[in-house]
Amino acid sequence: MVRILTTGGTIDKVYFDAKSEYAVGEPQVTEILREADVTTPYTCTVLLRKDSLELDDEDRALIARTVAEMPEKHVLITHGTDTMVETAQALAGVEGKTIVLVGSLSPARFKNTDAIFNVGFAFGAVQALAPGVYIAMNGQIFDPQHVRKNRDANRFETA
Amino acid sequence: MVRILTTGGTIDKVYFDAKSEYAVGEPQVTEILREADVTTPYTCTVLLRKDSLELDDEDRALIARTVAEMPEKHVLITHGTDTMVETAQALAGVEGKTIVLVGSLSPARFKNTDAIFNVGFAFGAVQALAPGVYIAMNGQIFDPQHVRKNRDANRFETA
Amino acid sequence: MVRILTTGGTIDKVYFDAKSEYAVGEPQVTEILREADVTTPYTCTVLLRKDSLELDDEDRALIARTVAEMPEKHVLITHGTDTMVETAQALAGVEGKTIVLVGSLSPARFKNTDAIFNVGFAFGAVQALAPGVYIAMNGQIFDPQHVRKNRDANRFETA
Amino acid sequence: MVRILTTGGTIDKVYFDAKSEYAVGEPQVTEILREADVTTPYTCTVLLRKDSLELDDEDRALIARTVAEMPEKHVLITHGTDTMVETAQALAGVEGKTIVLVGSLSPARFKNTDAIFNVGFAFGAVQALAPGVYIAMNGQIFDPQHVRKNRDANRFETA
Repeated sequence: MVRILTTGGTIDKVYFDAKSEYAVGEPQVTEILREADVTTPYTCTVLLRKDSLELDDEDRALIARTVAEMPEKHVLITHGTDTMVETAQALAGVEGKTIVLVGSLSPARFKNTDAIFNVGFAFGAVQALAPGVYIAMNGQIFDPQHVRKNRDANRFETA
Repeated sequence: MVRILTTGGTIDKVYFDAKSEYAVGEPQVTEILREADVTTPYTCTVLLRKDSLELDDEDRALIARTVAEMPEKHVLITHGTDTMVETAQALAGVEGKTIVLVGSLSPARFKNTDAIFNVGFAFGAVQALAPGVYIAMNGQIFDPQHVRKNRDANRFETA
Repeated sequence: MVRILTTGGTIDKVYFDAKSEYAVGEPQVTEILREADVTTPYTCTVLLRKDSLELDDEDRALIARTVAEMPEKHVLITHGTDTMVETAQALAGVEGKTIVLVGSLSPARFKNTDAIFNVGFAFGAVQALAPGVYIAMNGQIFDPQHVRKNRDANRFETA
Repeated sequence: MVRILTTGGTIDKVYFDAKSEYAVGEPQVTEILREADVTTPYTCTVLLRKDSLELDDEDRALIARTVAEMPEKHVLITHGTDTMVETAQALAGVEGKTIVLVGSLSPARFKNTDAIFNVGFAFGAVQALAPGVYIAMNGQIFDPQHVRKNRDANRFETA
């Protein structure tokens, strides 16, 4: 059983025509798992719907508390990329669980998107990795203490 | 470093208009990794281009020998789904490597396809799993001794 | 009111995994019109489901008779590309209607397909053209007496 | 020969990750024509790159002057949907040309978009219609004097 928490971010962004702005829409992760005909059981909880730049310490405490209290050992968190590293570090105190954070650099609703690959990648990693907190982006499994988002290159890299 | 071997199968199927038949085309796995902007280093070798129903014992011996002789510890094999289990079992003798077989139930060139998710899933699994041989399909990591393709449901399941 | 007849062809091809062959599936034209939120009224009739290479004189007589008997003045026919020209010529005797034949060189279910553009193109042409029979392919409106499918280039051209 | 002018609008919208806002990117119309393997000759000019809400009288005068001075008789204009009707009305004075305005309600870069169908539809209409100014949206050819965008239903309708 994999437990999924969604917190918002680019992966779930929706385009609203009238105002030409993005807002965080329905979680795309379950749509992606359904289209891939995934048979591993999972439960998805919509915890927050924010740009990750808007997440504050209280939000991170909520995420950590929610993860700690869930019975599942394998936890996948979809999250905006801008502060994914901060949230991963805030989860360092959670013991005995494999926690993988994933997001995407372009929205899942786009024709060309990294969202489908990334969710697949994270879903494989979360089932296979030893307990700990990880960031799964660009086909790499990162240690939250040694990773940064390179905004110019628009990708994650070891730091 | 992940080593990728392609052997054919639905994932790489191409449609030829004039004759209304499928043939195995260029490997799609590298295209999928490129579009997801994967930064983990990998090398891809096109070993075979066959429907997996056409693979024989000699082909399986070739795959096993090739995997055994490669220096990389993490090996991803794209393969047709109909005899993926047989090939995985034929790789049981290879020691000290994490070998993950993956394919797709609809071609990567289709609009609706499990190929992108599956490659992501297998790419995560192959980096995270302990040495051994695994089948990565339908978002599950299977032991080749306890899996079968359910043709009616068109998915893999524990057996 | 636009009347649509579907006769089969690549546009509606479906891939059946078990046997690695294509068969003609449900008409894609109505799916395409629905996704584009088309508001012009239309009625769709599934007349035949064949590769156009399999259409014979009897099939063409059926198509011509059906078109002649329909009350609508604007008729769109989806058709395989290999014998689209023959069918268009067989419709020459139908008077007082704008008849446009269209198909696609890759299936509508593919990620990269000309089907959506082509259906849009033909749907515009059939509403705007004077009575007559036309072939709408590759963004061109062709006279059936002066067009051929160039199989090597995989496109239609003036002949 | 079809002459294409691009003026911006949703069809060309691009998502910029860092700032979570849309901006008008490279014209998508030529990409769409290329992918459909269109063989009718055309020339594309990027005239403006604006949300149509930002277009003013000066912009409309520029569009009208540019269309009037071009040698081609068949002119396709891609345009934002919010003020497409106003621009079409501003073109009423141009004589002897078939002018078709088209746009899309979701960006061409989205997985689910009306942009490909709409460009196909307009490309067929512009070649087939008599001289005049037309709006081609939702699979309908509208007279600019009798059409409005229904924002709630997110589609064009006769008015």
